[in-house]
Amino acid sequence: MSQTFFIVGGIAICLLGFVVTAFLYRWVKKQPSGNEKVESIGALIKKGANTFLIKEYSVLAKFAGVVSTVIFVLLPSPIWQGDFLTNLGERLLMVLAYIFGTAFSCLAGKLGITIATIANVKTAEAAKNGISRSFLCGFRGGAVMGLAVVGSSLLGISLLFLATGNATLLLGFSFGASSLALFAKAGGGIFTKTADISADIVGKVELGIPEDDPRNPAVIADNVGDNVGDVAGMGADLFDSHVASMAAALVMATALGGANNVMMVFCYAALGLLSSIIGIGMARMGKKDNPGRALNASTYITTALFCALSAIATFAFDFEWRIWGASILGLIVGVIIGVATDYFTNDERKPVRNVAKASESGPAFTILSGISYGFWSALPAMVGIGLSALGAYLLCDPIGAGYGMFGISMAAVGMLSIVGMIISNDAYGPIVDNARGLAEMGGLGEDVLEITDKLDSAGNTVKAITKGFSIGAAGLTVIALLGAFVSEVNTAAGQVVIQSFDIMNPLVFFGMLVGAAIPAVFSAIQILGVDRNAQRMVAEIHRQFEEIPGLKEGKENVMPEYDKCITIGTNGALKELISAGLFAIISTIAVGFIGGVQAIGGYLAGNIISGLLLALFMSNSGGLWDNSKKYIESGNHGGKGSNAHKSAVVGDTVGDPFKDTAGPSINTQITVVSLVATLMGTLFLAFSIF
Amino acid sequence: MSQTFFIVGGIAICLLGFVVTAFLYRWVKKQPSGNEKVESIGALIKKGANTFLIKEYSVLAKFAGVVSTVIFVLLPSPIWQGDFLTNLGERLLMVLAYIFGTAFSCLAGKLGITIATIANVKTAEAAKNGISRSFLCGFRGGAVMGLAVVGSSLLGISLLFLATGNATLLLGFSFGASSLALFAKAGGGIFTKTADISADIVGKVELGIPEDDPRNPAVIADNVGDNVGDVAGMGADLFDSHVASMAAALVMATALGGANNVMMVFCYAALGLLSSIIGIGMARMGKKDNPGRALNASTYITTALFCALSAIATFAFDFEWRIWGASILGLIVGVIIGVATDYFTNDERKPVRNVAKASESGPAFTILSGISYGFWSALPAMVGIGLSALGAYLLCDPIGAGYGMFGISMAAVGMLSIVGMIISNDAYGPIVDNARGLAEMGGLGEDVLEITDKLDSAGNTVKAITKGFSIGAAGLTVIALLGAFVSEVNTAAGQVVIQSFDIMNPLVFFGMLVGAAIPAVFSAIQILGVDRNAQRMVAEIHRQFEEIPGLKEGKENVMPEYDKCITIGTNGALKELISAGLFAIISTIAVGFIGGVQAIGGYLAGNIISGLLLALFMSNSGGLWDNSKKYIESGNHGGKGSNAHKSAVVGDTVGDPFKDTAGPSINTQITVVSLVATLMGTLFLAFSIF
Repeated sequence: MSQTFFIVGGIAICLLGFVVTAFLYRWVKKQPSGNEKVESIGALIKKGANTFLIKEYSVLAKFAGVVSTVIFVLLPSPIWQGDFLTNLGERLLMVLAYIFGTAFSCLAGKLGITIATIANVKTAEAAKNGISRSFLCGFRGGAVMGLAVVGSSLLGISLLFLATGNATLLLGFSFGASSLALFAKAGGGIFTKTADISADIVGKVELGIPEDDPRNPAVIADNVGDNVGDVAGMGADLFDSHVASMAAALVMATALGGANNVMMVFCYAALGLLSSIIGIGMARMGKKDNPGRALNASTYITTALFCALSAIATFAFDFEWRIWGASILGLIVGVIIGVATDYFTNDERKPVRNVAKASESGPAFTILSGISYGFWSALPAMVGIGLSALGAYLLCDPIGAGYGMFGISMAAVGMLSIVGMIISNDAYGPIVDNARGLAEMGGLGEDVLEITDKLDSAGNTVKAITKGFSIGAAGLTVIALLGAFVSEVNTAAGQVVIQSFDIMNPLVFFGMLVGAAIPAVFSAIQILGVDRNAQRMVAEIHRQFEEIPGLKEGKENVMPEYDKCITIGTNGALKELISAGLFAIISTIAVGFIGGVQAIGGYLAGNIISGLLLALFMSNSGGLWDNSKKYIESGNHGGKGSNAHKSAVVGDTVGDPFKDTAGPSINTQITVVSLVATLMGTLFLAFSIF
Repeated sequence: MSQTFFIVGGIAICLLGFVVTAFLYRWVKKQPSGNEKVESIGALIKKGANTFLIKEYSVLAKFAGVVSTVIFVLLPSPIWQGDFLTNLGERLLMVLAYIFGTAFSCLAGKLGITIATIANVKTAEAAKNGISRSFLCGFRGGAVMGLAVVGSSLLGISLLFLATGNATLLLGFSFGASSLALFAKAGGGIFTKTADISADIVGKVELGIPEDDPRNPAVIADNVGDNVGDVAGMGADLFDSHVASMAAALVMATALGGANNVMMVFCYAALGLLSSIIGIGMARMGKKDNPGRALNASTYITTALFCALSAIATFAFDFEWRIWGASILGLIVGVIIGVATDYFTNDERKPVRNVAKASESGPAFTILSGISYGFWSALPAMVGIGLSALGAYLLCDPIGAGYGMFGISMAAVGMLSIVGMIISNDAYGPIVDNARGLAEMGGLGEDVLEITDKLDSAGNTVKAITKGFSIGAAGLTVIALLGAFVSEVNTAAGQVVIQSFDIMNPLVFFGMLVGAAIPAVFSAIQILGVDRNAQRMVAEIHRQFEEIPGLKEGKENVMPEYDKCITIGTNGALKELISAGLFAIISTIAVGFIGGVQAIGGYLAGNIISGLLLALFMSNSGGLWDNSKKYIESGNHGGKGSNAHKSAVVGDTVGDPFKDTAGPSINTQITVVSLVATLMGTLFLAFSIF
């Protein structure tokens, strides 16, 4: 069996994935669309989402242009050093890999948004005929996104590696993917919360009109936000993690030399995609079933399938069992982290219940107890990531020098193997959430609303698990990237220049301290950005209510200018995001040129550790506040309108940018920073002050 | 010049310090006491504070008993290994050193509380005759605490080292000091916020009576809280840091071997105390002066004096100039961190103003913007600590092997040299705060209130600087303790068993991940503890209002049972604190026995980094919310009673346990964990799983 065999096999499975994607896409599209009103609102959402994407991608194009130039000038070595022509090819290839990375991720995002804005309408309509079909509409819509993301990630890497055999280029591809993820995740996150908060402030608070009232100029922006933040953003984030984990593993595999290692990476990734395809195909729910259970069941099936298929492959191709063990360990720990995370956001457990109870004493207690449980929630995941990295290392270390770190990267590959399934579950959430909104705005009646509510609440539970999973995966991936960083610098220098990063070395410690502060500031910039952006949008909503005659009174045929709100939200989001992104990138470069590779090693470690801590804290406390509010709304502690509810609403508003803006984009920040450091490692080595 | 000369010189300066302390104590005590009502309330506060201290110290005694037994059994080596009698002396000495550490810290705390509960009455009365004398009463009361703390720290270390010449024993002494600090800081912090919140909930919110209304059963507990939390707690914390910095420096100095190194440690510490004595003696304010400027002026004088005196000593005794440079670097960076921290909590700067403005949109925005600026505020301090450690290392590294790390410990000694002055400023705060309350409760009139308000607001500003300073100092100290840990383990093993802590070693990384989660959980336990404890106290207040006839109506001669609230608060605080403390200690021991010394190295680094980040975040956001509320109360954004004010109150309530309970006790947690690790290092080496 040659390396090429596995890569081509991987490509074949990608193509199979695309065929299934196309089938699911057509299936969803064929479903009936329902009444005109629903469809016209759906069309507005679709248009808005496209407006956002076009704007985002056009800014991204400029950004990518600048980065491409920088890559061309500096990588693999500064243009002013040596003969320009000798490595011109490598320069161009790196730029190309970078552009490929952004382009593939763009395509997957665009496809996801397209299907999500179709599936929401279909899901709402299908609910008229019962929950099973409505569930399938939502899930298969999500699955289109899931399979497209993993398929394009694997295809991109396979083609690039097949064509060049150069693993370093994959880092460029990965960097492209994470630049896009930064835009999609942070930009989408800022946009979605801007719209959500602005719509609420003017609508619910000032005017006292219902949540999805079509008179509110921000109401479409709010629905658009769900799609660009949760569908496109989360997709880009996991695309990024998937690419990064494979890139890190392949960099180390080629550095280790054995062809078997490279084969394993491709083989396991392809089997992960295959397992996801089968798992997705088997997802069904009976009429009496619970949608949450249906989603979890297909996740467990996928997990079991991957374990079995990868074991068979390991046996058949005589791979190293220890490495197989490492990737299974990663996968299992990922599932465990997800389940542990669920404890903190599940409304049948103590944390959510206690926060709801504390809300009776006022909003300050909602916040204090939520923050406390958020802090607690970081512990199991941090210990889990630590143990899986440790276990994978110890398992693979006996194989030979360098294999311990390779084992960690394979644990990340294992954890991310079922990512197709994970994204499907995750994209299901905003689709059914949107469907619920459409059913309400389109007046589809109580029966339909009851079904969409059920589907929606399952989406929330699954979302918590997905988030824990994706943070865990990012954690392992960036540990692997730290290994890739060392491997890259040493390979480029032609000798072992980095032997270790000693904490007792003050350069390393200095880097750790600075690196640890970055995710905090990165989050702060985004949260303040949401606030600033919301002020702009609120001003626009006020203007429309004043200047458009008949809007406030709800005269027929008077419509607000939805697109103005969308444009303001989009421009603002991109503006705020760029300062956050530049802050992280420039800090990395500054630390690198001041303290050199040793400081960067510490910087990355500090960044990973504090990033994981804050990401877990913010995602989980946000989810917890959301569910506490819902728990009270379902009639506990006085129900809607009670003091406890008012406090819980404050908690939820604080939690929104935590869980949908700052928390999840920290993943991306960590990956971007790791890749910048890895790509510029040799420059830091050559030009640093210390 | 011999080593003994410097130690004896240090002891002489300690004695001078105690003479000045006695003089100041008598001076304050001699001041007039004012009316009966003020004095009787003052007496209640004093009694309550003593109730707390007695209870705290009696629980501590049991805790110390257990720890002493553990130390006796396990240190320097397990009792079942080797000949029992050969190191019986060393065992006993270690236990004795530990007990000394707690006892000295107890004494300093008790003295501080005693003077603070006298000075508050005197300050209130003195305000009748103008601000200058009132300021002096408050400041000199604080200075008694400041000089007592530094004097006993230096005296204890000097005597112990003079008697035994064994630096390892100092770690035992230091561990005693930090056990007490853990009790004083976390226990006092939980107590003070319990009382504060309970008094507010029932008094201001439920009954609508004023803040310091004597009918409220929790009102005395609230005032007691200021003393036990801010005076005794902060004193114990800085005692702990001062001892730890000297212990770490002396461990490394003896390991390095040169007698000069030991001399420098004692010489600089003694000169720091001398500078503080002179600085305190020179503190005055003119009639037109601003009290904040007077406090800052004496801080700067002390700083300048220390620089000059230590330079002269370095010249006269031919010490190493590079090491002098390191300690001055530490001192200067400490001052810079303090000033930078001030930016985020000063009501003339953007952060406080913006949070006040955001409060107009509702409490969620108060919280979100406050958290964001809190995250931002960590950056300058983290970079500052990193740079000073790096600078000190690079400065001293050329002297010889091991001197770089010694340089970092000397930077910590330098930063803490002026700690006598810092504590004086800090203890001034609660004294004038109490004086303000007494003036209000005792009806001393508007003129007096105006003066005490002025004094109080200066206390708040200085407090922010002090906190930044003490976190910075703790940061440097624990880096130095990491060095002491390595030095201890290697010395005990008789060979170099720890060469480095490599981040790429998965044991180290595992330790880092777990260590980083500890401060978050430690904070969460305390915040949830405050919440639970407040519920108990609120129930007691309700009971009293129901069962004591005439209390609610304010009948003459009907008094609430203040002591019951104090007892409930005390018992609850100690209960909650113990679970937090045990969690931190047990986690450390677990990681040590699982992952061995390598994992512990990572664990300490992760703990330090995330601890500093969270401590800075919580202390600064808490201070910022407090000042935003005050800024609104002084008439901005609608003033008292406006919507902005209501939101700001929510922010302040969230900020209270942040800045007075969880945030500042993280310092202590880090130190305790570092010392546990250092003391048990050889056991981890011998008995760990990996």
